[in-house]
Amino acid sequence: MTAGPATIGVDIGGTNIRAAIVSPEGELGARLRFPTAAQRGPKAVVDDLAGRLREMIAAHGGRIGAVGAGCPGPLSTPQGIVFETPNLPGWDRFPLRDELAARLGLPVVIHNDANAAAWGEFTHGAARGADTVIMYTLGTGVGGDLVIDRKLRIGPDTTAGELGHTVLVPHGRPCGCGSRGCLEAYASATAVASRAREAIAHGRESSLQSLPPQEITSHHVDHAADAGDRLAQEILQEAGFFLGLAAASLVNALNPDLIVYGGGMVNARLWLFPVIEKTIHEYAFKAPAARVRIAAASLGDDAGIVGAAALALAP
Amino acid sequence: MTAGPATIGVDIGGTNIRAAIVSPEGELGARLRFPTAAQRGPKAVVDDLAGRLREMIAAHGGRIGAVGAGCPGPLSTPQGIVFETPNLPGWDRFPLRDELAARLGLPVVIHNDANAAAWGEFTHGAARGADTVIMYTLGTGVGGDLVIDRKLRIGPDTTAGELGHTVLVPHGRPCGCGSRGCLEAYASATAVASRAREAIAHGRESSLQSLPPQEITSHHVDHAADAGDRLAQEILQEAGFFLGLAAASLVNALNPDLIVYGGGMVNARLWLFPVIEKTIHEYAFKAPAARVRIAAASLGDDAGIVGAAALALAP
Repeated sequence: MTAGPATIGVDIGGTNIRAAIVSPEGELGARLRFPTAAQRGPKAVVDDLAGRLREMIAAHGGRIGAVGAGCPGPLSTPQGIVFETPNLPGWDRFPLRDELAARLGLPVVIHNDANAAAWGEFTHGAARGADTVIMYTLGTGVGGDLVIDRKLRIGPDTTAGELGHTVLVPHGRPCGCGSRGCLEAYASATAVASRAREAIAHGRESSLQSLPPQEITSHHVDHAADAGDRLAQEILQEAGFFLGLAAASLVNALNPDLIVYGGGMVNARLWLFPVIEKTIHEYAFKAPAARVRIAAASLGDDAGIVGAAALALAP
Repeated sequence: MTAGPATIGVDIGGTNIRAAIVSPEGELGARLRFPTAAQRGPKAVVDDLAGRLREMIAAHGGRIGAVGAGCPGPLSTPQGIVFETPNLPGWDRFPLRDELAARLGLPVVIHNDANAAAWGEFTHGAARGADTVIMYTLGTGVGGDLVIDRKLRIGPDTTAGELGHTVLVPHGRPCGCGSRGCLEAYASATAVASRAREAIAHGRESSLQSLPPQEITSHHVDHAADAGDRLAQEILQEAGFFLGLAAASLVNALNPDLIVYGGGMVNARLWLFPVIEKTIHEYAFKAPAARVRIAAASLGDDAGIVGAAALALAP
């Protein structure tokens, strides 16, 4: 590893934009965090971002090699274009890379925000040192990422790694993607909360009955499970079973070293991980099941910034 | 591409061994085919093979760069060891690579036979020119292989690519691997024949009733479907649906260019391919579904020899 210049990692969200100067070792220096001026359209957002980055660069003094930006997709990394993104109105085929590069006079690369976060975990977090890694982000949906032979799998359409849309149940539960039976419909935080509401509506006993049904979240389910609630435990174990099934198929397909789980639902790992491991051993072949380890993501909200910064200078 | 020396590709089976001298362009020169002396144990098989290869090399005259051998697994390519293989008694942790290399005085590499065949299709067959390819071999079981970014995915345990053991139905039909609900249990030639027997036993009308049930094969089902048999058509379309589901999940995960189907069942592609394509478009995201093409393997029985020969000098 040769130490190159520092880079800037940017994490563009519908609500906030976060950025930092990141050393080649993945250490964060100066940071920025400000509300996304989403309603003013993409050019205003980029003007605002570029102005703040220029100030940060001037204060930094040292050389900045490039800027990497993670952004919600779908987008194209090779074309540098954001096709559309639900929480950023007007970002329709917006050439984010070139607009930002022109304002900064620096090379810019853009990546899907999930890919950027995965690369952060791979270069400086829970997956550091591994060769082939499957990553799942358990949140409102189920995100996914693949690092194969130390290379982030992006694919020609920048769509690879959609592991939440692995079909697990033919003609199964409807999924937000429009299809049915996807992992996301069984193991996202949203799915876990829905299962709790459904079970209570069907008369199952649970401490969660004390909450207004529409307010139940996966965090409530996790806390109830920890406190001994049988229904909550079953729901999390069922989510773990489906996560384990999806993982087992990929363990057979890819023979990976490591599976990393991130996102809010990973707080329930006490309930999820043992079932995931048991299911992998039951459904995958012995040798790859014996090799693969399971870990929780370690960089939290900084993963996207660290990964985008590392991708800024990736070949 | 620089043209290197010719290599030898060997395809070791439980019944026959086949080999050929293969040019760097994938053209087959002198060929060998002889029965595997399986009952005499691994050393006798290798003695016999090495003797015949030495004769072939002497008759060839020109330089042979290396030998690649495809063999049923499980085996380890980096260690050069065959761990065991059901149709070759006594091949328990047999160091095939070094035993053959010592007898020939040439570099030898060994690969899983399915991987070798996939590499043949990739370098000189149906997948030539693609970057990322998913391959399924539809035979007694369902074999699989992945080429990602022009690299055969083997994995540290030489077990990657076991795509027949993708779980499609939780708690589904028992699979030969010991688990349940795998693609292989729904879409192998064996599964297709079983489905026909089961349906007839349950009283379904079919032209296949004229055959003794235990003699029904997937080829009979294919021919009956071509002749208008409704049951046979339904069975093949169901197999196509499960193949499509498995493919859709990998299209979302990998964003590949191409899916290649080989093996005896691919003769039924008239029935399988339209359902596979429809299912991919229904279950996968639009951009990767629009990109991916479907093709039948084109090298037939020579794929293993061509691929093993090409892998002989692979870096």
